[in-house]
Amino acid sequence: MEKILNYINGQWIDPSDVEYVNVYNPAFGEVRAHTPLSGVTAVDDAAQAAAQALPNWRRTPAQDRIQYLLKLRQLLKEHEYEIAKAITDEAGKTFEESKGELQRAVENLEVAAGIPSLMKGEFSEDIARGIDETMIRQPVGVGATIAPFNFPAMIPFWFMPYALATGNTYIVKPSEKVPTTMQIVFRLIDQVGFPPGVINLVNGSKETVNPILDHPLIRAVTFVGSTPTAKYLYARCAANGKRVQAQGGAKNPVVIMPDADMDMTVKIVSESAFGSAGQRCLANSIVITVGDSHEPFVESLIAEARSRKVGYGMDEGVQTGAIVSKESKERIENLIGIGEREGANLVLDGRGTVVPGYEKGWFVRPTIFLDVKPGSEIWKTEIFGPVLSVMHVNTLDEAIALANSHQYGNQASIFTNSGVAARQFKYEIEAGNVGINIGVAAPMAFFPFSGWKDSFFGDMHGQGMDMVEFFTQKKIVVERWPKEWTRKF
Amino acid sequence: MEKILNYINGQWIDPSDVEYVNVYNPAFGEVRAHTPLSGVTAVDDAAQAAAQALPNWRRTPAQDRIQYLLKLRQLLKEHEYEIAKAITDEAGKTFEESKGELQRAVENLEVAAGIPSLMKGEFSEDIARGIDETMIRQPVGVGATIAPFNFPAMIPFWFMPYALATGNTYIVKPSEKVPTTMQIVFRLIDQVGFPPGVINLVNGSKETVNPILDHPLIRAVTFVGSTPTAKYLYARCAANGKRVQAQGGAKNPVVIMPDADMDMTVKIVSESAFGSAGQRCLANSIVITVGDSHEPFVESLIAEARSRKVGYGMDEGVQTGAIVSKESKERIENLIGIGEREGANLVLDGRGTVVPGYEKGWFVRPTIFLDVKPGSEIWKTEIFGPVLSVMHVNTLDEAIALANSHQYGNQASIFTNSGVAARQFKYEIEAGNVGINIGVAAPMAFFPFSGWKDSFFGDMHGQGMDMVEFFTQKKIVVERWPKEWTRKF
Amino acid sequence: MEKILNYINGQWIDPSDVEYVNVYNPAFGEVRAHTPLSGVTAVDDAAQAAAQALPNWRRTPAQDRIQYLLKLRQLLKEHEYEIAKAITDEAGKTFEESKGELQRAVENLEVAAGIPSLMKGEFSEDIARGIDETMIRQPVGVGATIAPFNFPAMIPFWFMPYALATGNTYIVKPSEKVPTTMQIVFRLIDQVGFPPGVINLVNGSKETVNPILDHPLIRAVTFVGSTPTAKYLYARCAANGKRVQAQGGAKNPVVIMPDADMDMTVKIVSESAFGSAGQRCLANSIVITVGDSHEPFVESLIAEARSRKVGYGMDEGVQTGAIVSKESKERIENLIGIGEREGANLVLDGRGTVVPGYEKGWFVRPTIFLDVKPGSEIWKTEIFGPVLSVMHVNTLDEAIALANSHQYGNQASIFTNSGVAARQFKYEIEAGNVGINIGVAAPMAFFPFSGWKDSFFGDMHGQGMDMVEFFTQKKIVVERWPKEWTRKF
Amino acid sequence: MEKILNYINGQWIDPSDVEYVNVYNPAFGEVRAHTPLSGVTAVDDAAQAAAQALPNWRRTPAQDRIQYLLKLRQLLKEHEYEIAKAITDEAGKTFEESKGELQRAVENLEVAAGIPSLMKGEFSEDIARGIDETMIRQPVGVGATIAPFNFPAMIPFWFMPYALATGNTYIVKPSEKVPTTMQIVFRLIDQVGFPPGVINLVNGSKETVNPILDHPLIRAVTFVGSTPTAKYLYARCAANGKRVQAQGGAKNPVVIMPDADMDMTVKIVSESAFGSAGQRCLANSIVITVGDSHEPFVESLIAEARSRKVGYGMDEGVQTGAIVSKESKERIENLIGIGEREGANLVLDGRGTVVPGYEKGWFVRPTIFLDVKPGSEIWKTEIFGPVLSVMHVNTLDEAIALANSHQYGNQASIFTNSGVAARQFKYEIEAGNVGINIGVAAPMAFFPFSGWKDSFFGDMHGQGMDMVEFFTQKKIVVERWPKEWTRKF
Repeated sequence: MEKILNYINGQWIDPSDVEYVNVYNPAFGEVRAHTPLSGVTAVDDAAQAAAQALPNWRRTPAQDRIQYLLKLRQLLKEHEYEIAKAITDEAGKTFEESKGELQRAVENLEVAAGIPSLMKGEFSEDIARGIDETMIRQPVGVGATIAPFNFPAMIPFWFMPYALATGNTYIVKPSEKVPTTMQIVFRLIDQVGFPPGVINLVNGSKETVNPILDHPLIRAVTFVGSTPTAKYLYARCAANGKRVQAQGGAKNPVVIMPDADMDMTVKIVSESAFGSAGQRCLANSIVITVGDSHEPFVESLIAEARSRKVGYGMDEGVQTGAIVSKESKERIENLIGIGEREGANLVLDGRGTVVPGYEKGWFVRPTIFLDVKPGSEIWKTEIFGPVLSVMHVNTLDEAIALANSHQYGNQASIFTNSGVAARQFKYEIEAGNVGINIGVAAPMAFFPFSGWKDSFFGDMHGQGMDMVEFFTQKKIVVERWPKEWTRKF
Repeated sequence: MEKILNYINGQWIDPSDVEYVNVYNPAFGEVRAHTPLSGVTAVDDAAQAAAQALPNWRRTPAQDRIQYLLKLRQLLKEHEYEIAKAITDEAGKTFEESKGELQRAVENLEVAAGIPSLMKGEFSEDIARGIDETMIRQPVGVGATIAPFNFPAMIPFWFMPYALATGNTYIVKPSEKVPTTMQIVFRLIDQVGFPPGVINLVNGSKETVNPILDHPLIRAVTFVGSTPTAKYLYARCAANGKRVQAQGGAKNPVVIMPDADMDMTVKIVSESAFGSAGQRCLANSIVITVGDSHEPFVESLIAEARSRKVGYGMDEGVQTGAIVSKESKERIENLIGIGEREGANLVLDGRGTVVPGYEKGWFVRPTIFLDVKPGSEIWKTEIFGPVLSVMHVNTLDEAIALANSHQYGNQASIFTNSGVAARQFKYEIEAGNVGINIGVAAPMAFFPFSGWKDSFFGDMHGQGMDMVEFFTQKKIVVERWPKEWTRKF
Repeated sequence: MEKILNYINGQWIDPSDVEYVNVYNPAFGEVRAHTPLSGVTAVDDAAQAAAQALPNWRRTPAQDRIQYLLKLRQLLKEHEYEIAKAITDEAGKTFEESKGELQRAVENLEVAAGIPSLMKGEFSEDIARGIDETMIRQPVGVGATIAPFNFPAMIPFWFMPYALATGNTYIVKPSEKVPTTMQIVFRLIDQVGFPPGVINLVNGSKETVNPILDHPLIRAVTFVGSTPTAKYLYARCAANGKRVQAQGGAKNPVVIMPDADMDMTVKIVSESAFGSAGQRCLANSIVITVGDSHEPFVESLIAEARSRKVGYGMDEGVQTGAIVSKESKERIENLIGIGEREGANLVLDGRGTVVPGYEKGWFVRPTIFLDVKPGSEIWKTEIFGPVLSVMHVNTLDEAIALANSHQYGNQASIFTNSGVAARQFKYEIEAGNVGINIGVAAPMAFFPFSGWKDSFFGDMHGQGMDMVEFFTQKKIVVERWPKEWTRKF
Repeated sequence: MEKILNYINGQWIDPSDVEYVNVYNPAFGEVRAHTPLSGVTAVDDAAQAAAQALPNWRRTPAQDRIQYLLKLRQLLKEHEYEIAKAITDEAGKTFEESKGELQRAVENLEVAAGIPSLMKGEFSEDIARGIDETMIRQPVGVGATIAPFNFPAMIPFWFMPYALATGNTYIVKPSEKVPTTMQIVFRLIDQVGFPPGVINLVNGSKETVNPILDHPLIRAVTFVGSTPTAKYLYARCAANGKRVQAQGGAKNPVVIMPDADMDMTVKIVSESAFGSAGQRCLANSIVITVGDSHEPFVESLIAEARSRKVGYGMDEGVQTGAIVSKESKERIENLIGIGEREGANLVLDGRGTVVPGYEKGWFVRPTIFLDVKPGSEIWKTEIFGPVLSVMHVNTLDEAIALANSHQYGNQASIFTNSGVAARQFKYEIEAGNVGINIGVAAPMAFFPFSGWKDSFFGDMHGQGMDMVEFFTQKKIVVERWPKEWTRKF
């Protein structure tokens, strides 16, 4: 039984005086590790270590800082199997999905390795005669990421590589449900040989989060999780004068136009909705069929969803893995019940799924509602499970209006053959990540992961140049060196 | 007696049901206008008007939007005398200073006219085979600026031109002490012919601010003022889920190295400290002399300060104008008294200044303390008057450490002949605007006005590209148009 | 009868010792001015004046330099009628087209006014410990534009505003066929009050061009004209060690897909092909119909072409103006004859056009060939008249292959409803300016005018940031100021 | 005895029908390899292979293309000893210098790995109502580098990684004097597994160069070498319509101000002038002492130069290695003789150097001339050996004027404590790479290597973003998808 440790100031630390909670393999329903609920002390230790490491790390040339990141990239690639298996075993997703997630982490390291180009400041000669002006990007200080359970490897890498590359020092707090992956990653970080304190790991839950939000040495916080927590965190960090960005929930519509290629569309939408057991913030969870697309799409969708293989993510051919926890499974099943009671047409019911050989595991088979009403509970709520709500409208205008009436704006997709429909959709849809004939519109690492509305609080996002803006503060230097003074030599 | 009006939805509005307060000419000590303390109703009217104007303004090409800004620029230049006189007559500064301030407003319009270049999004072909990714910048929505009394013309223009140029609609709330300048500016805005609701003016004070912070239609707020208010506002906007940037107070150190050109240095520092009667957030308010520089600098400084002509800003030769209000004058004089009691050496005392011909006006002559102690009240507090505190250290290291021990980080300057000293200073000083042989290190409009520490809360700043980041939200579009589909025609 | 003058060093100069040639109004077939064929002396005078003006102009802050451009913009707008009429009267196009052209000039001034933002250099702190690196953009020196006859106002403004804004001084040589427009523009330039020598005008033809290409003080040359001249000029400037970009000819295909909106498509293509009497480098001159689009498109096209009103550009309702010169008209008519003899099907013949009231004018009515063969003379040659060659293929692949088999790559357009076809087209087509449902794909001033293949020689283009790259040279500064040296004070 | 091969289309090729020439170890004066003088056939094979590889390489996502570069980076690091030894053994420099050179190659791979960020195009919504504009960067096609003998590893990497990363295919032609290093590098390239034809190696000399300049499939050429060859090549490529940049010779002045730290300055200047035996295009070759700096500097310089250890670059403690060839050594010694005859004061004479144990090797000890005259042969000519010419002036103005009177503008340095002197120098000096208290102002890989005047022909330079501009062509797409068309579904 693995005991999860913190990693502070280059040392593995067992915070022995705090409570520990269980970490499960959700496909087995069995405990696989214990993780500490670190508190004020651990956070303060990490913050102090990071603050002490800051001056020298900041003086380390960016060119040298990225060498650490490139070494880490190499190690992540070499340990792909080990890390991806850990993801599958704690988050429940399939091995392919886990490898895909890890690949995204690697890509963020590659983009962050471009920091010498990306964090350049600016210089203007003669803003007035003989006066020059420079903009220098300097690190903000100590930063921290509070990460969710659904992407244990990827999400810390949306932020941390950029923070480090731009000269900040850092603290990562993984979800207490999936701490194992970062445990491996930090073993590799240790192997890379970052100077002590530059990058720290603190495990825990709520009791860990508040000290991070309140610690005066931590100057910038990033968060990914639910909208209520994101809002809370955004407000609390701001009340403490910090920089903050907080990514919240999602309920992602996908619009099906009559001219879409139905075969391909059904496959892609199904994969988006039911892949990772629907526990992705970019999963399609509402289908809006337009005009004649309804019938052919729905019929084919039900068949496709029914045929998906559900099971343990390491097993061959599994398409939909486990639900991360017993509580999540119960919440999903409960919401399916609410949907039924609200009058939606439950044409495929994934409740009570038992996978042979994994009878203690937590699974929900793909679930489909038709005739979902705007404003109903299952329309409003992010279910975060393999549950798809289908709605129908007559025109693209109506589809967009319906999509835009939702509080969230994380992702929206359209399937169509028409350039006209695509342009209207991308122009009018109120969502930060838009897919055209794409099911999971995940921005590449050199673009921001760009939520809108209640899916995001802040201005700068994770990944790419936004991270440089977020993790550097601009210093303006106005300089005058009058030529007359030269004569004095 | 002018009655100040609001300008909402393209109409001049007299919010007749609210309280009015006096606006003074501080050099005369006389009332020159009455301004309304608008409340929830006016803010809501403005927010609704702005929200209604938004869709069409957003669809107006950037190329067309900047035509309005270029017209406004032309009108501001043509009305220079009228506007600059209004600034002098309500804010107390000299006519030259008022014109300089207006020039900064004009420059921000010019930079914002470059928006078609500056707000470009990004495009990557083949992020995977056959899949493209676009980043589009779209406006955030309705924005608002809450402006301070010391730059009635300039500060709204740090923000508003960029907000408008990027397709947002806007609300300006000037300080209730200096509403006249914006009254003239909005007459010109009216003349330009912006579509109704695109740009709105709401006058008032605290009772106007909170409705702005809380209004759900207002998505982005910028503020310039004191640090406690900035912090309050930053937290409250965040609690409401808004984008926000808030600029606070300052206490700007200037380091005098022994190799500086003393004549020039004294003139520049004196102008920085006593110009605008010290009511600038970039004013030098702490002098730190290093080594041998102390004696020659101080001697010459006192003479220079003593010789400054104090009076009504429209009068020929006046170098230091009036203090904005009776309360401000009393506060400054009170702080001078505290400084004396704390044991600082008051070598020049500006209290009790009476200017012949303007006996009812509010003036404070240049005031200099020597031997000011770190941690003392006059060291800690932003006096916002023509009061300069002189301190002494032996080395540049000590000077930088002393400067960095302050809570603020708005500006810091050094005077030296040495490239070595300059590089160390700009590398190590914790301030966002740095001057090398410069007294007022005001960034040009194409650079961010970049406060640090307790002088700023947020990440993106006023002016230039930061404004584009702040006032646009990024929409990522991932597109796949499989070539095989073409065959279907 | 106007006598065209040079403008050198802030003076209007009559180069009395050179030959003069006639300038015509092509709609009247009458002489309207005489223009000098300036030679080595005038070019040398202009180059010397520009070189002498350079140091001070370079030291003038960019912020101040753009004030001249913004004044010129204002004057161009105020003199719209006068300038546009001059364009019509010497280049033959309609008054609306002339105003449109002038608007493009204005837009380039607006973009160039953003130079303080656009010409910023870069700064990197600590490229090694304690070493910083700056990239500064400094002007190249004296630049020159050699302009063609078809856009007398616009084309010099693709280059000149950027050259001036970035601190270079400049020489413009208009086409000897259309010197009148620049005569007016330079009167306004004179009114603006640029320092003498900053911007110069030299009129003439070949005998003027070679001295420009060879003058050692002229460091950067831009050209727009035919491909043979562009190649000649590119090689000769390079042999002289200069920076150079040279834009050549075009033969722009437009692909008509069966799913295009035929009404709109026919109108747009017809306007592209026959507007400006086909004398635009972005005019569609080859139509490639795909599959079923052929019949409906061609039928409608012929009707539309036949109905166009041809005549004097200042007359109400005229859609196709005059051909710039007698020689051009003869060349066009001759090429139509060649087309006939090659076996193309001449379904609309514009030869021998006589416009009542303008019997001496030079006109060619819209002309359409069907069944044009790849490799034939009229397929290969840029006719630069209102002559459209129609070809037919079965698939988009074939259409693209046919288009790409041409030596030119200036513009290509497609009309379609399909996002799939559009993506394939823009991905595979070998042309620098691509239109999707657009007839004249002219890049906005903040994008480069981007020819490919034999339509362009060089790397950086006219307009926008490319101009900043072309007209500035980068200076890299690597700086070390060791902290230990500070102690020496 | 190694036989040097070509690498074309993924195969090692022995061009058996051409002449071979000797490759020497200059420290031993002995043949170490034979290299072929490839001609038209090999160039054509390479160009055809590159052209065939182009379409698929271009369609390979940038994200995937950089994986090859990152693998190559890893291999270069792992083979540091082998490659650096090869450099030393064929180019004569010290092992430390060789490793430093290789490090620069590695850094260019790292910067080029940032291409997904750096080669983004641009996107503007609504350039007119409903019309969008995109700028896409697409590869130019087949590129080629013609490299010099002095940096066998580094210089191809200024260009090639960027060309490949942006989707071009490539040909490298090393100097026939130093082909061994690229032989090893291409073995690693082969190991990386680039698709055949993507990157090709052709060995040879003049008979190889002209076919490259003339081959129609090669669209972009970069060159580093002497100025006459650079000019020739620039003109010939342009005459063939190609993109081209050509870097030429240098004669780099270093200005010594009286306030410089003399100990450090002498060490740095001596290393710059005599390191790599003066065979660097950034070597200081002219010293200009200002005012009182002359005596202390010169005295100390002579001592420092005399003490340098000259010998075989692999031997411990050697500071100045061998001269690349017998001809070069004779040319250097001949120029020293000319300097003597011109009347310059030869205070240190490196002619006739014999290094014990390496009696057949080609060495020249550090050589110093005082009282060198402007306009003399040794002032004008790039000696490319360890020969330093000292001149003296009274003021910085004179020093800058003297430096600027030279035809070259590759590098210029100043040593001073003064920010004023530094600013004047960097503002006024006509050189593209400027050092402040730096001896070899080599730009980092994320900045352009920026020669000026006769040291460079072209506009875009090697390294960083300039390479992206040079190796991509911009495609502008203007798109209209009218919303009305949607209704047609």
